[in-house]
Amino acid sequence: MRFPSPSSSPPGQAAHVLPIRIYYEDTDAAGVVYYASYLRFCERARTEWLRSLGFQQQQLLTARGIAFVVRSVDARFLSPARLDDALELVTRIVELRGASLTFEQQLFREGELLFDSRIGIACIDTLRNRPTPIPQDMRISMQTSNPT
Amino acid sequence: MRFPSPSSSPPGQAAHVLPIRIYYEDTDAAGVVYYASYLRFCERARTEWLRSLGFQQQQLLTARGIAFVVRSVDARFLSPARLDDALELVTRIVELRGASLTFEQQLFREGELLFDSRIGIACIDTLRNRPTPIPQDMRISMQTSNPT
Amino acid sequence: MRFPSPSSSPPGQAAHVLPIRIYYEDTDAAGVVYYASYLRFCERARTEWLRSLGFQQQQLLTARGIAFVVRSVDARFLSPARLDDALELVTRIVELRGASLTFEQQLFREGELLFDSRIGIACIDTLRNRPTPIPQDMRISMQTSNPT
Amino acid sequence: MRFPSPSSSPPGQAAHVLPIRIYYEDTDAAGVVYYASYLRFCERARTEWLRSLGFQQQQLLTARGIAFVVRSVDARFLSPARLDDALELVTRIVELRGASLTFEQQLFREGELLFDSRIGIACIDTLRNRPTPIPQDMRISMQTSNPT
Repeated sequence: MRFPSPSSSPPGQAAHVLPIRIYYEDTDAAGVVYYASYLRFCERARTEWLRSLGFQQQQLLTARGIAFVVRSVDARFLSPARLDDALELVTRIVELRGASLTFEQQLFREGELLFDSRIGIACIDTLRNRPTPIPQDMRISMQTSNPT
Repeated sequence: MRFPSPSSSPPGQAAHVLPIRIYYEDTDAAGVVYYASYLRFCERARTEWLRSLGFQQQQLLTARGIAFVVRSVDARFLSPARLDDALELVTRIVELRGASLTFEQQLFREGELLFDSRIGIACIDTLRNRPTPIPQDMRISMQTSNPT
Repeated sequence: MRFPSPSSSPPGQAAHVLPIRIYYEDTDAAGVVYYASYLRFCERARTEWLRSLGFQQQQLLTARGIAFVVRSVDARFLSPARLDDALELVTRIVELRGASLTFEQQLFREGELLFDSRIGIACIDTLRNRPTPIPQDMRISMQTSNPT
Repeated sequence: MRFPSPSSSPPGQAAHVLPIRIYYEDTDAAGVVYYASYLRFCERARTEWLRSLGFQQQQLLTARGIAFVVRSVDARFLSPARLDDALELVTRIVELRGASLTFEQQLFREGELLFDSRIGIACIDTLRNRPTPIPQDMRISMQTSNPT
């Protein structure tokens, strides 16, 4: 699972940073964060990144009939997060295509990389349940904004 | 939280028993089952109880426009369940009214009661988002069947 | 499930308020917040309340060998929370005894009460797995502080 | 994310099949299974596969001081699972090395592939928190058994 350098990364794209606190709900009996919890954190961060651009998932769904759905997850678990940890989840677009995009999402504890992922997302027309182009206003926001 | 003896318990109502296996997803860093997980088990059991009567949540929603929603939870956590435990979740109706019902749901490990609850459910017309009578065919099934 | 007025509520006890944002992870296919998710929010709030008093769950566990475990949940689900909702979870102690305490935890959306609960907690000696008195420094913090 | 053909797949290794039923707890407000839930199902299946070989996670932890931890997830989400679906999760080893192994885990609905993954696992000495060889008796079971 080598991550190729993105070919169409938007120039000047800055990263979005979301603080994540670890609670009991995120951990398991091995004493560390349960591996599926990292995907929950990543989804929170993508939602907050979208909100920082002025878009809300619920409104996209009801007003425009589009949804962003996960198509692929490539993730490496490097070191475990633990109860009470205060972490930073860094999200950036590494590829932006017509009807899909790819995020790099990385979780850090005081500068140490704990979790590293590439998450592929498709833009879906929910009525026809088929891929549809990312709306132009969203594309422009994604390309130019500095969401932090 | 004293549990009064039910006044309108259907006569002859037998209990539904669902086996529950504990996985890492259910536990937390304290080494035991996370307290909200018990409610997930209870919902599984109510769904399987309903299925044993011939009804599926998804079909009720789309074909009849009704849903059963939780209105109240009264629960006591007596002894913790742990990773790899093989448990039995016993579900029975203790009160059946026009547009609502109350379940007793109890989780056992080899006869020892770990978790004891009363869960109140309302029957909802999802179009108007208001309470609606439990359909007659469901009521009859609930009163007479022996779901085990 | 009538909630009696607390007999030993600490005088002057102010409420702790935690903002809660609803993400996809919290919802279910009925389009609303899944009922067990409310307990996850409540646990986050109790942890943040404890942290605001200067105590961390992990440190209590490893340095003092004590844990706070849930003994009872009495909850009413009054109106559903939904995706993207920005909520406030209000937490206050309503009873403080030798080795246990009871919280009132209420979730609001713009002043509307959605979820109302009483949650009973016991202080446990984790080595002997038995109830133990709440340490004096914690008791004093709980009685006098204004955690908001 | 192309999946290379495994170089050291155990000859004659048969697949383990776990039935998965979809409950409300697994879904989200988009009406389908939440993407992190698939990882919960996969962990259940690996645990049941291990149990079918005669090993339990809790016993490995306490009696031998070893744990199997996830190092990588490569997953494709091909078609959504829905509430009430009855699915089959097929698990097989595709690579078995000294201190690690790789699973292929695939979720089917009536023969249709919904979710496809490669999950890399390391065997860890929990005292030293370092990789350790998979015990010989486990290795032999993994190589020769037909866990279904």
